[in-house]
Amino acid sequence: MEKIKVGVLGATGMVGQQYISLLAHHPWFEVAYVAASPNSAGKKYCEAVAGRWQMMFDVPAGVRELTVQDANNPALADKKCVFVFSALDMDKQQARELENAYAAMGIPVVSNASAHRGTDDVPMLIPEINHEHIAIISAQKSKRGWQKGFIAVKPNCSLQSYMTPVFALLQAGYAIKRMIITTMQAVSGAGYPGVPSLDMIDNIVPFIGGEEEKSEVEPHKILGKIADGLIVNDESIRISAHCNRVPVVDGHTACVSLEFGDKKPELEEVRRIWRDFKALPQQLNLPSAPVQPIIYREEPNRPQPRKDRDADKGMAVSIGRLRKCNVFDIRFVGLSHNTVRGAAGGGILNAELLKAKGYFD
Amino acid sequence: MEKIKVGVLGATGMVGQQYISLLAHHPWFEVAYVAASPNSAGKKYCEAVAGRWQMMFDVPAGVRELTVQDANNPALADKKCVFVFSALDMDKQQARELENAYAAMGIPVVSNASAHRGTDDVPMLIPEINHEHIAIISAQKSKRGWQKGFIAVKPNCSLQSYMTPVFALLQAGYAIKRMIITTMQAVSGAGYPGVPSLDMIDNIVPFIGGEEEKSEVEPHKILGKIADGLIVNDESIRISAHCNRVPVVDGHTACVSLEFGDKKPELEEVRRIWRDFKALPQQLNLPSAPVQPIIYREEPNRPQPRKDRDADKGMAVSIGRLRKCNVFDIRFVGLSHNTVRGAAGGGILNAELLKAKGYFD
Amino acid sequence: MEKIKVGVLGATGMVGQQYISLLAHHPWFEVAYVAASPNSAGKKYCEAVAGRWQMMFDVPAGVRELTVQDANNPALADKKCVFVFSALDMDKQQARELENAYAAMGIPVVSNASAHRGTDDVPMLIPEINHEHIAIISAQKSKRGWQKGFIAVKPNCSLQSYMTPVFALLQAGYAIKRMIITTMQAVSGAGYPGVPSLDMIDNIVPFIGGEEEKSEVEPHKILGKIADGLIVNDESIRISAHCNRVPVVDGHTACVSLEFGDKKPELEEVRRIWRDFKALPQQLNLPSAPVQPIIYREEPNRPQPRKDRDADKGMAVSIGRLRKCNVFDIRFVGLSHNTVRGAAGGGILNAELLKAKGYFD
Amino acid sequence: MEKIKVGVLGATGMVGQQYISLLAHHPWFEVAYVAASPNSAGKKYCEAVAGRWQMMFDVPAGVRELTVQDANNPALADKKCVFVFSALDMDKQQARELENAYAAMGIPVVSNASAHRGTDDVPMLIPEINHEHIAIISAQKSKRGWQKGFIAVKPNCSLQSYMTPVFALLQAGYAIKRMIITTMQAVSGAGYPGVPSLDMIDNIVPFIGGEEEKSEVEPHKILGKIADGLIVNDESIRISAHCNRVPVVDGHTACVSLEFGDKKPELEEVRRIWRDFKALPQQLNLPSAPVQPIIYREEPNRPQPRKDRDADKGMAVSIGRLRKCNVFDIRFVGLSHNTVRGAAGGGILNAELLKAKGYFD
Repeated sequence: MEKIKVGVLGATGMVGQQYISLLAHHPWFEVAYVAASPNSAGKKYCEAVAGRWQMMFDVPAGVRELTVQDANNPALADKKCVFVFSALDMDKQQARELENAYAAMGIPVVSNASAHRGTDDVPMLIPEINHEHIAIISAQKSKRGWQKGFIAVKPNCSLQSYMTPVFALLQAGYAIKRMIITTMQAVSGAGYPGVPSLDMIDNIVPFIGGEEEKSEVEPHKILGKIADGLIVNDESIRISAHCNRVPVVDGHTACVSLEFGDKKPELEEVRRIWRDFKALPQQLNLPSAPVQPIIYREEPNRPQPRKDRDADKGMAVSIGRLRKCNVFDIRFVGLSHNTVRGAAGGGILNAELLKAKGYFD
Repeated sequence: MEKIKVGVLGATGMVGQQYISLLAHHPWFEVAYVAASPNSAGKKYCEAVAGRWQMMFDVPAGVRELTVQDANNPALADKKCVFVFSALDMDKQQARELENAYAAMGIPVVSNASAHRGTDDVPMLIPEINHEHIAIISAQKSKRGWQKGFIAVKPNCSLQSYMTPVFALLQAGYAIKRMIITTMQAVSGAGYPGVPSLDMIDNIVPFIGGEEEKSEVEPHKILGKIADGLIVNDESIRISAHCNRVPVVDGHTACVSLEFGDKKPELEEVRRIWRDFKALPQQLNLPSAPVQPIIYREEPNRPQPRKDRDADKGMAVSIGRLRKCNVFDIRFVGLSHNTVRGAAGGGILNAELLKAKGYFD
Repeated sequence: MEKIKVGVLGATGMVGQQYISLLAHHPWFEVAYVAASPNSAGKKYCEAVAGRWQMMFDVPAGVRELTVQDANNPALADKKCVFVFSALDMDKQQARELENAYAAMGIPVVSNASAHRGTDDVPMLIPEINHEHIAIISAQKSKRGWQKGFIAVKPNCSLQSYMTPVFALLQAGYAIKRMIITTMQAVSGAGYPGVPSLDMIDNIVPFIGGEEEKSEVEPHKILGKIADGLIVNDESIRISAHCNRVPVVDGHTACVSLEFGDKKPELEEVRRIWRDFKALPQQLNLPSAPVQPIIYREEPNRPQPRKDRDADKGMAVSIGRLRKCNVFDIRFVGLSHNTVRGAAGGGILNAELLKAKGYFD
Repeated sequence: MEKIKVGVLGATGMVGQQYISLLAHHPWFEVAYVAASPNSAGKKYCEAVAGRWQMMFDVPAGVRELTVQDANNPALADKKCVFVFSALDMDKQQARELENAYAAMGIPVVSNASAHRGTDDVPMLIPEINHEHIAIISAQKSKRGWQKGFIAVKPNCSLQSYMTPVFALLQAGYAIKRMIITTMQAVSGAGYPGVPSLDMIDNIVPFIGGEEEKSEVEPHKILGKIADGLIVNDESIRISAHCNRVPVVDGHTACVSLEFGDKKPELEEVRRIWRDFKALPQQLNLPSAPVQPIIYREEPNRPQPRKDRDADKGMAVSIGRLRKCNVFDIRFVGLSHNTVRGAAGGGILNAELLKAKGYFD
């Protein structure tokens, strides 16, 4: 099978670099187009990222020599790639318009940016949870008069570590009323240079701008339903999030306390639900899908970022410490790799789902 | 005024060292006696701690040459000191009996050990909250047939960062029904060598043995009332705690969500209550009492361990990020210095209270 | 004695903040004037540093309400302060001209900036080593036609941890031919935001721009002699420096191997020289002078940044691990506090020396 | 080809775990036997390491259920494996005798322990440097009356980052007279629990017991020649090492200054020598051999532990910052993965060399 040519917008930033890295050996996709801000435009990719390449392995051979294009000019991407991954790092309004422009040009946009997360005809996907939201795309296209182009997004990285386990419980028939969450988030989430080392040596910072709001609002859309060509939020779970920055390179950890509705599972049942959980990405055997979306660790002191973030290529969520909560019903610790599952890896899985479902044909 | 001679049990461990350091220039107390395990007994103090002294400043001159005594033999302390600080690090049952033996010998014990925290005629003191619990001491003495000796303890370090703010609200007439707390605790809490560096570089550990239980149970006694010569717990607040170890030297941080009873204060009122809060240690002007027990920080990203732990010599609690909670009523971040306020400094403040109230006369 | 009014240029940066903090309780000097870039000009100092104040204690009361002035306009400082500390962080050529302008206005400049370090009529002072270089100031003034104003500077922070011990040996009659030094430098040396946390978690960076050159060149001037109204460098020691950034907040450590000339001291003699070393700042009893400029630690694993940087208020150099070198003659480890001794504290000591010698009269 | 059954002595420690991990998918070798201290003997391997497994991936399936044997009883290994990797962590004299006992039993020992590093008929191998030292094995066997058994060892982890580059220069005809080295070593080198986190947060420790001595002595044997059935050390390079512990998980970094003999290469020539360097492991295409033993990085701030330690599966040495030395001739920074190249990976490469040369037939 010939690989599908893809583009990366915002290719020189941290998330863009992660896309380039993760796509280096992808069985379906091949990076053929890289675009970034006008500063980088015209340079070879390897030169554009010199001094700020943060990945463990060097720039992949196939991308080193690509010329970086101006991301603000969608016309340049025409015929160069079948779709683009967007890791645009700019003003929200600007990003929204630019992603629209790519879609209008006939180039689908699989986005990490927060620009369109609140747009009610744009699906915000975690494929294990709400893959059926991709059905909104036809309404999106017709409403906007787009022929081939469309936009699909992924949610914020902070909630990946608990939304899949939470969904697994919902799906098993256990309604959830309230959740209080405290996250301890890795510095890679803030990009490079990002968090100053003076804030992260012998210290933590109990604040991440905008993160608590996203953690509280985005789940409602993820769990929503399509009705009349729109995604209607499901606000039945009330969520309170405390978000902290901790001196960890990669891997967001969350301490979760959760209250069920009237029907309350035993701990053993919760563990069983998590262990048995599989979803469409596993059934379709998508290349980036983890074999087991939720890995339950029995050790009393796991999951830990350094040891568990890379589980199943960074795409699985690791859970541990399930126990009764004195105040709500259960509590547990969840962990996921914020720049893989929570960013570029999650975007790639979205694209694999869309490809498998024929959206790029 | 001549200084009161005091002893330190467990003087060579981390908490013992902190006592030695904090007492170096104390206006009322003077370390005249140091005791530790038989291994250290017979050595000069400076030799006994060689290679494991962890304090910022060198062993104080007055203590360097003291000969370490066997802590297991209370008789050795007789006439050497008016009371002892206990930082014994041993089996709980053993520590309990040993502290009893000192008290029976006529030597009051102001303890950091967890041995007697659950004993219902032993006060567990945070002087700003429950100084009136010292009244139990006369019942304790008479019941046990102790003449001069008695035992008073302090609670676990993990709860110091939120119990004073919580008490201030209670005292102002706002009942609290439920609290969910996530702590991010410093490694000094585990002593030396304590937490391995392999667990604390690019990592956190979402588990501290026994810590969640202490955080959930001890507040009930602290908030209890004396009745019939016993301290009767007040269990009206239900507490759920998630305790995590993070790569911070000193300073425990807590993210707290809290539900009031029917009467709910405005945020501005909460802030006012905290800012205005003063208690007996401030009225008595005890040497180690912070001027303001609760410091509210307006900056959006405070308190932070490295910047706020040393507030008012490490004895004040720093609070920040007060805001509405989506699930309960309010949420905030609290921080206190775990080895000062949460350990030796807290013990010294207890001793100052007892001294001021005539318990060492 | 009435305190001398002083100004701080670059008052909002890290070094400027350190000046403000260290001068809070200074017996001789009082901050009466703060100046910074035009962005900050017009704001109250506490507002200008909101969100970037990095010191352990809050902005001192006396400085909070001072209005920040435009540092580019020396005329504003006229009559407001007797002299200024310069922590200007700008292009070298620009800084040089601006410091000249202050001096020309009649305002002496005690500078941390690197602008004038290479200027041959400007003394670069470590008062324990080359206090006699202040004699060049009269030549400087007359040559430049300055009446009251003059410029004195301090050297780079990286060399403070070994130049005093090296000088003590030279002074004792032991010529030194060659030195190879590897530094492990704290992140505070790069200011705030400075070094990204992604570079300092589970990592070190074996490069600091410009630092090796300064470490190799500046000692020649420090050890130089005045001749014909100029400071003539002494290049008799050949120096090679490897400079590394490590995840430490404060405190630069140096591993030093050193080759003597024909006359070679025994290790015991070296230790004795260091322990006995005192210099003019000690004799004059300057307020910021350490009692013992060089503290030799006997423990096999000291000095360490977190434990030794604050020795004698951060103004002493801590040395340890003196031993024979297999290649040269001796080797040792030196440590000094880079933002106290190596920056603002060093500048203040320079000013104290100049004051004591009548240069501000 | 059927895989060769191998054993691991000291299988539950850090280095033993690394062997188990790295051999999980080895094309030639298969772990069939695990032995450790009597405490672990009798347990399943997965139980024996519960709570102290430090590797990124879980215990490989093939090893989980193996019963741990008592390493002190070599007879138990008979017929169970063709040879053993020794990661024994015990008294040197004891380890020496135990390794001898295995060899005497007919079981070759490929060792990481320091026990036999100084034994003059035991080769201490870095295959890229001194593979010809394996020829001593026949003399070793005949002298000791061993039939099939023998002992080969690897050197200390601290010197791997510079000995291959140094050897490449020697081999190219450039004699080296003197070297001064400062290492910044990762905590994994001290095993688990190893270095306390209180020593590694906001701190470095300028001392590692015994490490400087090994770094200065072992190169002489590595560079030695076989003569009369013994390895005769080559002491022509004088070496001085400063060894420091820094807060890095894996990856030892070294700053090296080096003096050539009369013949001195240009920097460009040095770079060329390093880039072109290949040796027997590359020619034999051994499974663990890095494609390029020395990777020269052009970036001004590399190599860095987190970014470069995993180069070529952790088996390549990364070099950077080659420049003139003010005191000697050249200086550079070297880095290698201490638990892969410097420990288990290095041992496996040694075994591959021995296998390829028929020593296990």
